[in-house]
Amino acid sequence: MKYELYYWPYIQGRGEYVRLALEDAGAAYVDVARGSGGTSAMMRMMGEGATPPFAPPFLKAGKLVVGQTANILHYLGARHGLAPKTEASRLWVHQLQLTITDLVLEIHDTHHPLGPSLYYEDQKAPAKKRTDEFWNERVPKYLGYFEDLVKGNGGFYVTGRRITYVDLSLFQIVEGLRYAFPKRMNAFEKKIPLLLALRDRVAARPKIRAYLESERRIPFNEDGIFRRYKELDL
Amino acid sequence: MKYELYYWPYIQGRGEYVRLALEDAGAAYVDVARGSGGTSAMMRMMGEGATPPFAPPFLKAGKLVVGQTANILHYLGARHGLAPKTEASRLWVHQLQLTITDLVLEIHDTHHPLGPSLYYEDQKAPAKKRTDEFWNERVPKYLGYFEDLVKGNGGFYVTGRRITYVDLSLFQIVEGLRYAFPKRMNAFEKKIPLLLALRDRVAARPKIRAYLESERRIPFNEDGIFRRYKELDL
Repeated sequence: MKYELYYWPYIQGRGEYVRLALEDAGAAYVDVARGSGGTSAMMRMMGEGATPPFAPPFLKAGKLVVGQTANILHYLGARHGLAPKTEASRLWVHQLQLTITDLVLEIHDTHHPLGPSLYYEDQKAPAKKRTDEFWNERVPKYLGYFEDLVKGNGGFYVTGRRITYVDLSLFQIVEGLRYAFPKRMNAFEKKIPLLLALRDRVAARPKIRAYLESERRIPFNEDGIFRRYKELDL
Repeated sequence: MKYELYYWPYIQGRGEYVRLALEDAGAAYVDVARGSGGTSAMMRMMGEGATPPFAPPFLKAGKLVVGQTANILHYLGARHGLAPKTEASRLWVHQLQLTITDLVLEIHDTHHPLGPSLYYEDQKAPAKKRTDEFWNERVPKYLGYFEDLVKGNGGFYVTGRRITYVDLSLFQIVEGLRYAFPKRMNAFEKKIPLLLALRDRVAARPKIRAYLESERRIPFNEDGIFRRYKELDL
């Protein structure tokens, strides 16, 4: 069975956390909306059936359709060795992923504090305020939390010596913050040496490296979650 | 075993979705932070052990500590008949709860568009804009989605004839929007007759009714997620 991933074709966005897991697992999948007619197929599926997704990304696995990024990773992690085996450990890695979900939304809100339906150009002043707030208060809290977890586990991955989908997502967080806020992130990085080492460890995994060098990896751009707007950086 | 719920003692907040599930299940629990020394105990637990929660609410079940509202409900639902039994169905109700999580954060952002660390008084103008956007674009999308699901399932609960924790959360969403935005919600309610009927069905459940009449139910107030600020209503 080939998985079908449904997500917007021109951005990394929330779909990227799923792509990274599928790629690291070496799972067979089609990124449906990047193919001909794929976006229309995606839109149709959102209004269909007994369990229509509210929004992309969603994953079709045979007859099953799973939506919400963290829920998709919860499902994939159990099947592809990207989550631990006990129920308690699975709840824990899922809990960490949900904290990353919260962080991702706060990253999105730096450029869209007045809501997702208005243009960035219509909310530049509040975006600047929210971004300052985000870097002063929220980044230290979130990344400090994950840095401490890696430290507590011997400095390798967030739950110990074995990789989980949470580590793949933390890789993406570091990459994204570096892209969107190069100066702010550069000034902050000395506080998170273990997360940076984790990022390098993920990037060096053969399947991830091959993915990052391929055309399957969509470049960062200003339609995604992580946007480089000079006026929001330092 | 008595569950221990850890959450801020003066607000409903995100903890309320867990309280409603525990109450409807008739589960034995202590709302720890509402007791003497409880808030200090909660703060201590956030820095302790191998799996420290990032933020309240979290639930202690024996030795297990589970954080993130939707994750707690995923755990409780399976144990107390508030979730279906198959894996596919459980992923589906969890997916719905994660969509409610997104909605709750958007509700919070109506009064805190510039971030959670600044006061409302320092962001009144952007709050008004974000609230307009929320009611014009987001409420119809979210509540319309759930209304359609209830309709598709025969008009009873969101997944059919049997209640799940998602229905308890939808009850709270309707209550909260009525509290925070009485005029806007009053104007909107004609579009969601089935969700209102679902709200009444939940409120009439004996254990929920007893809970709502008890002192265990903290009244809505302007420190929670749902805040009544006249200038944000119509």
